[in-house]
Amino acid sequence: MLITILYDSGYGHTAKQAEAVANGVRRVPGAEAQLIAVADGDTPWEKLAASDAIIFGSPTYNGTISARLKKVMEDSTRPAWLPQSWRNKIAAGFTNSGAMHGDKLNSLVTMTLFAAQHGMIWVGLDIFPGKSPEEKNRVGGWLGAMAQSNDESPEVTPIKSDLDTAAYLGQRVAEVTGQFKAGAAR
Amino acid sequence: MLITILYDSGYGHTAKQAEAVANGVRRVPGAEAQLIAVADGDTPWEKLAASDAIIFGSPTYNGTISARLKKVMEDSTRPAWLPQSWRNKIAAGFTNSGAMHGDKLNSLVTMTLFAAQHGMIWVGLDIFPGKSPEEKNRVGGWLGAMAQSNDESPEVTPIKSDLDTAAYLGQRVAEVTGQFKAGAAR
Amino acid sequence: MLITILYDSGYGHTAKQAEAVANGVRRVPGAEAQLIAVADGDTPWEKLAASDAIIFGSPTYNGTISARLKKVMEDSTRPAWLPQSWRNKIAAGFTNSGAMHGDKLNSLVTMTLFAAQHGMIWVGLDIFPGKSPEEKNRVGGWLGAMAQSNDESPEVTPIKSDLDTAAYLGQRVAEVTGQFKAGAAR
Amino acid sequence: MLITILYDSGYGHTAKQAEAVANGVRRVPGAEAQLIAVADGDTPWEKLAASDAIIFGSPTYNGTISARLKKVMEDSTRPAWLPQSWRNKIAAGFTNSGAMHGDKLNSLVTMTLFAAQHGMIWVGLDIFPGKSPEEKNRVGGWLGAMAQSNDESPEVTPIKSDLDTAAYLGQRVAEVTGQFKAGAAR
Repeated sequence: MLITILYDSGYGHTAKQAEAVANGVRRVPGAEAQLIAVADGDTPWEKLAASDAIIFGSPTYNGTISARLKKVMEDSTRPAWLPQSWRNKIAAGFTNSGAMHGDKLNSLVTMTLFAAQHGMIWVGLDIFPGKSPEEKNRVGGWLGAMAQSNDESPEVTPIKSDLDTAAYLGQRVAEVTGQFKAGAAR
Repeated sequence: MLITILYDSGYGHTAKQAEAVANGVRRVPGAEAQLIAVADGDTPWEKLAASDAIIFGSPTYNGTISARLKKVMEDSTRPAWLPQSWRNKIAAGFTNSGAMHGDKLNSLVTMTLFAAQHGMIWVGLDIFPGKSPEEKNRVGGWLGAMAQSNDESPEVTPIKSDLDTAAYLGQRVAEVTGQFKAGAAR
Repeated sequence: MLITILYDSGYGHTAKQAEAVANGVRRVPGAEAQLIAVADGDTPWEKLAASDAIIFGSPTYNGTISARLKKVMEDSTRPAWLPQSWRNKIAAGFTNSGAMHGDKLNSLVTMTLFAAQHGMIWVGLDIFPGKSPEEKNRVGGWLGAMAQSNDESPEVTPIKSDLDTAAYLGQRVAEVTGQFKAGAAR
Repeated sequence: MLITILYDSGYGHTAKQAEAVANGVRRVPGAEAQLIAVADGDTPWEKLAASDAIIFGSPTYNGTISARLKKVMEDSTRPAWLPQSWRNKIAAGFTNSGAMHGDKLNSLVTMTLFAAQHGMIWVGLDIFPGKSPEEKNRVGGWLGAMAQSNDESPEVTPIKSDLDTAAYLGQRVAEVTGQFKAGAAR
């Protein structure tokens, strides 16, 4: 089972969140995590087509996903959307921004719409909001994993609970993907 | 496999869409469709808990779902949200409104967020927008099934292509639910 | 200049936020604030029609505004929407929920769409996100004023900075409304 | 009074909509319309700073605004967002896509959030949905002007009613901007 994390990161904070998602995926036996950074250049469409799930990640800039991730979405039209080659893959998303709320929801909604246009199946978080800054889902979202970073380096921020939330999402996606794939094999 | 369509309808147009969704569900061998109209009174929580999938339906009034469906969402907190008894059920949605666009997307996004808060897994349409009024998905959405009704009676509107779209969604949800359930059994 | 705050509140937290908005309005010379609680029964449509601005407030429950506020929106169709009697009034919104993020954005977007359907003009916050829990806009939104309340009583929560944010919104709406009204008089 | 239309267009359809918006602006005495195409290169920030209103336009691709318009939004952070130099300018938006619904709402919501982050004031349409394809607002939105284009050339599509809708929005923005500006002068 191959799960791809397709993400953008401006200053390294969302990249750290992406790595946490990957670590969560790897907790599930039989699940392989593959990180693809949008900034690394040409999107490897065949790797995405070969994935059982794609988890989208982006900083929330100016109230939505980054222009670079949006560009990849547009580029997907020919290799993936027209042939509907991502149909029935599992999809999920995560985002990071400077403010607690920061209109992060609009980024996750945008990813959800994109995934729906590709015929994908969307998996969110299934945990309650954290009651303290140390608990998972302290930011308090469900459609995907949210993180908040201040102006410090990615060594320091997003904090552990946000990375735990990201890892939890990765694990959950791997579990759901495993179940869905097992059902297809029957 | 039990699939419940939990819907509200003000004048019968969304009810007709709901019936089309149910007919689509029934096309799939082994899938049972159960219609629950919000207007019929107390929500049968045990029937919802026993369902493998819940498909939400509402007219789009004033840019979002009906107050009556929203009330049921609020009522779900104690019987369903706190125990997370809908976790990993499949979810989907449909909506009808007087205008072609009519801010229907906000209703479907609202249903998606509600489902995510319940730990449910969201399934949308996987078909291209119709190129003519006679084709499925003529309204052109993906997050769920959209219909448009004018001021005529539910005998006449929404038109056949919108009902076909609704039926297609029901069938797709049943197929995805079947696969996901089969995977759990392994 | 009359500015109406039309709000719902389940346990008193959003009511406290509404009072803060009213206090902010009253800081502006010539601005009168009028609080209308949805729970108090029949909506006084003539008071709303006589207002220069309407500020909508609601808790975010299950990812959107309360069913009670939604019901008032539906009721507005005949007395306000059909005659477009709120056209060109200034509109704004605020919301409170238990989690920091809590999908509050969807409530504000829903209010914005409703206001747009009425031909109203939307005013948000014009302040940066707070860098500490003591600063205004600590939750970090712009479309309207956001607050977060934990399980304690409205005496204690939402905290002062959230009420300051609400008051700031009230003041801003009054200032913008004053300018817009002065322009009409010319 | 200077009103800038800042837009992107992939194949010319949204450009035609942008020109219609400009024509609507010019119907208002004293209103000057300035078209800035994102594709023309470096954004002239001083022209935007000198505008009384900015109307954003974009095709809806993959469920949201174009990557190129998003890039301009990101670029605005330093010259416009940090100094809040667009504060209290009037804002509005329009979008075009291939399908009737086409998730256009998410593009307009994204523009609205962006404008709110800049402290701008949002103006939508104040007209009912068209009852026939020949009437203004046939697509049926309020947050901004919506258009639908099929695969034909911009000579043919979007159709006249969509361009009339766009022109109406331009005119409305000019009128509201004029009133707001007159109020400031008092």
